[in-house]
Amino acid sequence: METHKGDIPSKYGSSAPNLVNRQTIANDTVINVNGIEIGGKEIVIIAGPCAVENKEQILETAKAVYSGGANLLRGGAFKPRTSPYSFQGLGEEGLRYLSQARKETGLPVVTEVMDTRQVELVCKYADIIQIGSRSMHNFPLLKEAGKCRKPVLFKRGFMATIDEYLHAAEYILSEGNREIILCERGIRTFENYTRNTLDLSAVPVLKRQTHLPVIVDPSHGTGHSWLVPAMAKAAIAVGADGIMVEVHHKPLEALSDGQQSLYPNDFVQLVKDIEKIAEACGRKIYHHKPLIV
Amino acid sequence: METHKGDIPSKYGSSAPNLVNRQTIANDTVINVNGIEIGGKEIVIIAGPCAVENKEQILETAKAVYSGGANLLRGGAFKPRTSPYSFQGLGEEGLRYLSQARKETGLPVVTEVMDTRQVELVCKYADIIQIGSRSMHNFPLLKEAGKCRKPVLFKRGFMATIDEYLHAAEYILSEGNREIILCERGIRTFENYTRNTLDLSAVPVLKRQTHLPVIVDPSHGTGHSWLVPAMAKAAIAVGADGIMVEVHHKPLEALSDGQQSLYPNDFVQLVKDIEKIAEACGRKIYHHKPLIV
Amino acid sequence: METHKGDIPSKYGSSAPNLVNRQTIANDTVINVNGIEIGGKEIVIIAGPCAVENKEQILETAKAVYSGGANLLRGGAFKPRTSPYSFQGLGEEGLRYLSQARKETGLPVVTEVMDTRQVELVCKYADIIQIGSRSMHNFPLLKEAGKCRKPVLFKRGFMATIDEYLHAAEYILSEGNREIILCERGIRTFENYTRNTLDLSAVPVLKRQTHLPVIVDPSHGTGHSWLVPAMAKAAIAVGADGIMVEVHHKPLEALSDGQQSLYPNDFVQLVKDIEKIAEACGRKIYHHKPLIV
Amino acid sequence: METHKGDIPSKYGSSAPNLVNRQTIANDTVINVNGIEIGGKEIVIIAGPCAVENKEQILETAKAVYSGGANLLRGGAFKPRTSPYSFQGLGEEGLRYLSQARKETGLPVVTEVMDTRQVELVCKYADIIQIGSRSMHNFPLLKEAGKCRKPVLFKRGFMATIDEYLHAAEYILSEGNREIILCERGIRTFENYTRNTLDLSAVPVLKRQTHLPVIVDPSHGTGHSWLVPAMAKAAIAVGADGIMVEVHHKPLEALSDGQQSLYPNDFVQLVKDIEKIAEACGRKIYHHKPLIV
Repeated sequence: METHKGDIPSKYGSSAPNLVNRQTIANDTVINVNGIEIGGKEIVIIAGPCAVENKEQILETAKAVYSGGANLLRGGAFKPRTSPYSFQGLGEEGLRYLSQARKETGLPVVTEVMDTRQVELVCKYADIIQIGSRSMHNFPLLKEAGKCRKPVLFKRGFMATIDEYLHAAEYILSEGNREIILCERGIRTFENYTRNTLDLSAVPVLKRQTHLPVIVDPSHGTGHSWLVPAMAKAAIAVGADGIMVEVHHKPLEALSDGQQSLYPNDFVQLVKDIEKIAEACGRKIYHHKPLIV
Repeated sequence: METHKGDIPSKYGSSAPNLVNRQTIANDTVINVNGIEIGGKEIVIIAGPCAVENKEQILETAKAVYSGGANLLRGGAFKPRTSPYSFQGLGEEGLRYLSQARKETGLPVVTEVMDTRQVELVCKYADIIQIGSRSMHNFPLLKEAGKCRKPVLFKRGFMATIDEYLHAAEYILSEGNREIILCERGIRTFENYTRNTLDLSAVPVLKRQTHLPVIVDPSHGTGHSWLVPAMAKAAIAVGADGIMVEVHHKPLEALSDGQQSLYPNDFVQLVKDIEKIAEACGRKIYHHKPLIV
Repeated sequence: METHKGDIPSKYGSSAPNLVNRQTIANDTVINVNGIEIGGKEIVIIAGPCAVENKEQILETAKAVYSGGANLLRGGAFKPRTSPYSFQGLGEEGLRYLSQARKETGLPVVTEVMDTRQVELVCKYADIIQIGSRSMHNFPLLKEAGKCRKPVLFKRGFMATIDEYLHAAEYILSEGNREIILCERGIRTFENYTRNTLDLSAVPVLKRQTHLPVIVDPSHGTGHSWLVPAMAKAAIAVGADGIMVEVHHKPLEALSDGQQSLYPNDFVQLVKDIEKIAEACGRKIYHHKPLIV
Repeated sequence: METHKGDIPSKYGSSAPNLVNRQTIANDTVINVNGIEIGGKEIVIIAGPCAVENKEQILETAKAVYSGGANLLRGGAFKPRTSPYSFQGLGEEGLRYLSQARKETGLPVVTEVMDTRQVELVCKYADIIQIGSRSMHNFPLLKEAGKCRKPVLFKRGFMATIDEYLHAAEYILSEGNREIILCERGIRTFENYTRNTLDLSAVPVLKRQTHLPVIVDPSHGTGHSWLVPAMAKAAIAVGADGIMVEVHHKPLEALSDGQQSLYPNDFVQLVKDIEKIAEACGRKIYHHKPLIV
């Protein structure tokens, strides 16, 4: 672990930059999104499809995850895809559908921003803006996110060390935005059974190094829907403040990530399962009020 | 995942060799060691020092882990060390001390064998022989282990894919020994905060692909004692049949792996913590009878 | 290697997207920059400091690399740095200094762009715009680069497969810009003696899969100046169309990457050494006219 | 890079154990095998099939590589294979065929040993015993190799750091055998186009850290025969003391590694190509006397 300007030598045997460092800010940062606390005692569940594909899909999935116990809705309107010829997301149209899904379910919305020029637009619609794994090193984007007034769900780069991840988070903090939710989502290794290797040890390491909340994404972390429940349970057991999972009402027809998306029924079961683990760890899942509609 | 001669195409989208494959043997393999069942409903805990250093150390630690709730005692008499100038283990003297520790506590003993020429010797003293991570590709050793009459605790190579791991296990099975306990103990990645990256997703993958029991070693998997409890809890939540942890009565004076060894008191707390997780998963920890002495 | 929409199954046992694929465009793409051909018979050498630090530094280094045999000048005005508190580059001021260095030496200028909003600005000053390793997955930036009229030096992500790299290049091509120079610059592995592991096999693989020129950056690829000459020679032997190396007139005082920067004298020797390798491979180094000043 | 007992802090910014360290033994170790010097001014070429399959195959290939310019013959009689159901080598029968091939061509023989119990047997037939990549951490085997009177071709583990590799070599040296030839043969990375990533920077690093000769195996290093010539040239350019390549008279029918084996004709061309690179580096290839038969 290299030391950089602004790093604070840690009593825990490593160093981290100033504002992200738990030695600078000792108390856990708790982020309040429409009354839901992230990083507090209760565990939060973010669920929804990989991408917003059309109005029906996002509304139907939103209601399903709401009923199943999700606290926030995820869904991408701007999608980073390996190939330029793959579905790139609906753009602003997708943001409007997310907005409508929030209206109908009351679920705050998390959605990704990829381009410095779109931060303002995405902030208009989102309750939490997401910076994805491939953008972790997009420093101009981090600075823009640091200037905006919305919490940032900031995913670890699949190729980034924890040290680099914390320094990247510092880019956001140093511009004035202290509402950052860290998210372990799997790293690239030689193992090819899974899409990525979910590095659950990163959770206690991050909780020790920084005051920011830490959640886990077992969908990208494994790439297989059947692995998601077991890894979600492990994520809670290891101390995560929440999970983010992909749910699709018709995974086999999904325009992206179908293989790792849960059916709504599986999601319902998942929530029940992790509730037990949460209790065994002296925590519980945040419970929202009954469905608005 | 390459296909090799003797592989069975799996309905789960990959393949595995014949005897290790759950499609060949559908029921979970349960291994009985002096009345303790590994791979059954109950979770087993293996604990002890990295290396047997002297008689007092192993006896004292054995009693401590027994009292804390361990079901089996670990301790190395032959140690694979990076440098030829590091402590290489006590050899047969260490095996004798382990034997004595078993006599005094009733705990069956797990200890490593590194050399084809020592399999017979180690089998004389051990209840379970261990093949370590660095030996996973030592095929002559696997064949010898396959011929012996003792269960084999077979660790995943830190550089091995799950596919290679299963094929290596087949070397043992194909020689006639079906009593194999698999053990995820961390893989080598670019992350350098931890000694290895504990690949907990390997547990459900292995449970799906094979009928063999699967345990987790969070001590080598992380390299830091303070990370062990959280990762042990996660291991149980993800579905492991047990854990193996390093405990030393004086970690700061240990001849090897002191940094990742728990104090006996921390081990006591660890067992209590994972007991709760086990219950949340509908399992419990195997409880032995009170200390013999 | 996954197959994506728009991929062409290759007779070489893999697939690649449409425009980047050598089966679509059989002939080598040769890019002409102020009369210097990149991807043709002759080998090109790009040299200069990591970052433009001030006017004197860039002018002095530019003259030194010109005299040593460089064909193009590199130097960063916008720097992606791990820590927000590290030197971030001089911005437009740096671009102006590069412009002046070009005026004084005749060397065309390569400089990095990190932000979609700066593509226009950087294109005003640069002869070739560079997209760095950390930006390889910045798809909005790739699209902007695809719309501009300048050649793009496009570095491989340090954690990107060759397959992902080719698909990312397709983002640029599919927007209309076919002048792309690929650059292998090291990938992240478990080895920690070197900063990265320079993957020289990527050069013949890329030359087979695509028609685009391929160069190698042994400075980032190794992280140690003393390793640069040997790896530069190997790069030419393996078939690269050029190399890009960091040179600083005072490496020990460099604001970034000093450890991997050559002294001007070492650069002079390096050019002589690779000239011999080039000849042994039936190629030669592009020779410019004598220094303008 | 960790420091171990017996390490010498290096002026080159790292450390290495005692006997392997160039600070202990400053002069290059040159190993004489039947008059062929390895690690001296001349470059040596080791060629032959992956495995000895039958008498005709090894004799035919031996003559072909002899005519093509090989200095030593390789061929495995004991094969470490992923699956127990794959061809495991002919054992002592294979060693006898190798012996006969040496008699007919005069080429000294390199062949692998995998088991401590076979070191004596293999030493009876081989001129150089090989310890393969999967056995790099087999410390009992290293100690046996250290006690024998034959030079050891010692391959880097595909998941071993250079530091671990040097410490493993010290196991051999510390038992009294100083005739070790190091061999870079590719490391495991996330890239899956090639079988391994050939880490050519390891060559200059090893040459700096230790006095032992260093060769390169581009066959295992890439896994594709068409990549072997380019990588062999790069290996010589980077400073290797030789190369080891797989050649088979009928690659499509090979029992192992056919995909990465050269046809004899391609081998003839390869030797011509690297001869030119060797000359450009001020070295030449060792030339043996005309074929004995």
